[in-house]
Amino acid sequence: MTSAYQHLSKTFQRLSRFGHLSAIAGWDMQTMMPAGGSQARGEALAELSVLQHEILTAKQVGSWLDQAEQESLNDVESANLSEMRRAWQQAALLPAALVEAKSIAGSRCEHAWRQQRPANDWQGFSANLKEVVKLSREEAEIRAQANGCSRYDALLDVFEPGMTSAKLDKTFGDLKLWLPELLQRIVAKQAQEPVERPTGPFAIEAQRQLGLSIMQQLGFDFNAGRLDVSAHPFCGGVPEDVRITTRYKQDEFLSAMMGVIHETGHARYEQNLPKQWLGQPVAHARSTAIHESQSLFFEMQLARSADFLQLILPQVVAQMGAQPALNPGNFVRLNQRVKPGFIRVDADEVSYPAHVILRYEIERALIGGEIEVDDIPAVWQEKMQAYLGIDTRGNYRDGCMQDIHWTDGAFGYFPTYTLGAMYAAQLFQAVKRALPQLESQIRSGDLQPIFDWLQQNIWQHGSRFSTQQLITHATGEDLNPAYFRQHLENRYLHN
Amino acid sequence: MTSAYQHLSKTFQRLSRFGHLSAIAGWDMQTMMPAGGSQARGEALAELSVLQHEILTAKQVGSWLDQAEQESLNDVESANLSEMRRAWQQAALLPAALVEAKSIAGSRCEHAWRQQRPANDWQGFSANLKEVVKLSREEAEIRAQANGCSRYDALLDVFEPGMTSAKLDKTFGDLKLWLPELLQRIVAKQAQEPVERPTGPFAIEAQRQLGLSIMQQLGFDFNAGRLDVSAHPFCGGVPEDVRITTRYKQDEFLSAMMGVIHETGHARYEQNLPKQWLGQPVAHARSTAIHESQSLFFEMQLARSADFLQLILPQVVAQMGAQPALNPGNFVRLNQRVKPGFIRVDADEVSYPAHVILRYEIERALIGGEIEVDDIPAVWQEKMQAYLGIDTRGNYRDGCMQDIHWTDGAFGYFPTYTLGAMYAAQLFQAVKRALPQLESQIRSGDLQPIFDWLQQNIWQHGSRFSTQQLITHATGEDLNPAYFRQHLENRYLHN
Ligand SMILES: [Zn+2]
Ligand SMILES: [Zn+2]
Repeated sequence: MTSAYQHLSKTFQRLSRFGHLSAIAGWDMQTMMPAGGSQARGEALAELSVLQHEILTAKQVGSWLDQAEQESLNDVESANLSEMRRAWQQAALLPAALVEAKSIAGSRCEHAWRQQRPANDWQGFSANLKEVVKLSREEAEIRAQANGCSRYDALLDVFEPGMTSAKLDKTFGDLKLWLPELLQRIVAKQAQEPVERPTGPFAIEAQRQLGLSIMQQLGFDFNAGRLDVSAHPFCGGVPEDVRITTRYKQDEFLSAMMGVIHETGHARYEQNLPKQWLGQPVAHARSTAIHESQSLFFEMQLARSADFLQLILPQVVAQMGAQPALNPGNFVRLNQRVKPGFIRVDADEVSYPAHVILRYEIERALIGGEIEVDDIPAVWQEKMQAYLGIDTRGNYRDGCMQDIHWTDGAFGYFPTYTLGAMYAAQLFQAVKRALPQLESQIRSGDLQPIFDWLQQNIWQHGSRFSTQQLITHATGEDLNPAYFRQHLENRYLHN
Repeated sequence: MTSAYQHLSKTFQRLSRFGHLSAIAGWDMQTMMPAGGSQARGEALAELSVLQHEILTAKQVGSWLDQAEQESLNDVESANLSEMRRAWQQAALLPAALVEAKSIAGSRCEHAWRQQRPANDWQGFSANLKEVVKLSREEAEIRAQANGCSRYDALLDVFEPGMTSAKLDKTFGDLKLWLPELLQRIVAKQAQEPVERPTGPFAIEAQRQLGLSIMQQLGFDFNAGRLDVSAHPFCGGVPEDVRITTRYKQDEFLSAMMGVIHETGHARYEQNLPKQWLGQPVAHARSTAIHESQSLFFEMQLARSADFLQLILPQVVAQMGAQPALNPGNFVRLNQRVKPGFIRVDADEVSYPAHVILRYEIERALIGGEIEVDDIPAVWQEKMQAYLGIDTRGNYRDGCMQDIHWTDGAFGYFPTYTLGAMYAAQLFQAVKRALPQLESQIRSGDLQPIFDWLQQNIWQHGSRFSTQQLITHATGEDLNPAYFRQHLENRYLHN
């Protein structure tokens, strides 16, 4: 007789196969598809997504979940079952009408934003955003009642299971105590250390070759993935076939290079998820923040270190040609420059958390009903001034209208960026303890021990453990922002 | 109240959306996917194909089809309904066990063939082929009983609705009367006309640019399609986003160039299917032979004509560089060379029909039970000798094991190649009558009137009319092989 767990396992495998097609068609849409294919693709993906939702929320699934709780399962199966329940609950909880209304309001808001942002049209934008916030509050309320938590915590849990705003307040509160002053000291120090920009143009094909050669060095498996180009870089595809993208500019190559390294971090996590469980929820990456910790481990901890930069400089010179700005000292300064600015996605690792904390505080208040959409610009200005010393009055386009995260109601997502940065610092410190010769190994290109450690401690576990268990097992303690502080001070003050 | 026709229409639109995802994932598999993604992709596509089969053969679909016959439908809806019934019947007729057994036997046969062909291992291959033939005969028997026709005709009807072996015997019988002698005369004539081969290497990127520039000239819509590379060239994707492929060799560029032109013919048909009916079966291309008539119209009728070759020669020289072999006279001779050989896919347009007639006669006898798999080599040898004067004794690898069409049981497909060639000649002759200045228009690059004619007479109709109606309406008569003969004589003897 087929057990309830077996029924579930088969259902989720089926969902995973449809998810495969959705991932590849989604990748294609961003990288390959000509504009004329857009409407038909959108309809095809929407049809698939309706099907996936139907399969996941079918009546039987709920009963199987209850029955399976009574069945005798091993540890992995139990972990798999609770990931299944999580997926089911997230999908089954919301009324179809709310999901559809949210999707329509999000599309409308995002679509109009493309014109409104260049026009600095806050009035027009805020009208659409109010509808998105209204629906997100409804979603949050439903999830909050089911989870027995606050509205914002319920949204946070979608992206980062186990995380709460109480924990975030503590962690981010700690950061806020020292980050603004640290930032000022670093900026003051770097003002004494002039940096020279490399002069282009830099051929796209040479940039691509440089990216490929660094991916190779970072252990990307080209038998199970590709590098392509898209307007917004991402890591997509499926664990068996991971598709990363970047974008190139002719006059500057470092951002594309670091972008490729960042996505390679995401990709190695995906490529090394537990093969034997693929197709089941327990094989998924643990959470958004843990995913980001891997990309930031690669980009910030490893690749922007002086040791790694020394390692890759010959490859850089081979592809870009020698020039004065590509001397070892300047190459490090180029990749460690700190400069507070308006735009989050262009921020260095020191100012980045300030952008994130600002978003977190605003979106939490917004979902909690403590502020309204009309209050955003004033709060934005106040916090931007306090955390980064930047004046954004009247400049909505580079202020609260700068990106699309809020337009589609992805409230609860922002904190994962900085959680990822803190996990990355904590993990890197643990690697250092495990590998006493780490610096010289990096300089000589012997990176395998690092990857082995990540494989052993993070990648192979998929979602078998909670984030807290995973990080405690890997580093000996739960999330601790002290490692991130120590990392920033060591790199930017004590170098 | 929703009519049965509306239910059907919605069901087929849904199927079309899933077909979209299958087409794009299939294209990706041939062009982009790294080897490691193969198993997961295969499983994902198989899962989708099971779903598509379930939707199409759901009990209600049969009743809706019957009910819709009683509803008041306009001409297009009626045509759509009969295409729906055709699709439903083809899918619903076969027991699932037979479909699965055929799929397994076909995969096994094809997989082993990859080793067996280079090893010239007929014994090994024929053992697998016997199973494929056995299952194809079962399929043919079921279809024959449903259609009230012969076994082979039932398979033919899958690819070419309305075509019968009686009609083929007449048409191919006509060809057999004059083709072998015509071929001999052409070969003798060309022996007096030496041709010089261009010397490479020819850069892949230059070949790609040449292909793109000719595609542009041929009206390919790059807003609704792409050109990429695959091991076996094909035209895939969906009408809104047509993906064609080619393969390049460094030492020879003409086959890739003509391959791109051929696939562009398929692509323009797809890109110009009736927009207002897309998603419904009536919007599909009429048949396999009509599809091939479009690619061969572009490649054989148009592109290998002296007028078109004169038109594109400057583009060829611009990309490949000038060299003596690229003088106007030699360039025409290069693209009109006739040389009977072992391999069908390498054949010129004069010897190609001989390959097809040979396959047709063998597969018809095989499905009809008049010969067995063990008889194939002797029949092959006899017919190859008679039609092309070629001795294939003992050479299975370049004889009956040369391609994979039979390994997966696609019996009934081969005739459509030569039907396509004959339709192409007949259509081109009709275009000539409609456009008295055709030759000079081609030489000057004024190709739009040709495309307008094809759009008017073929492309815009989708599957609204039967093949016979379509071709009669376009050319004034049903299939007539005299135009193909006249074309070959004009091009190869009277030039
Ligand atoms: Zn990332
Ligand atoms: Zn073709």
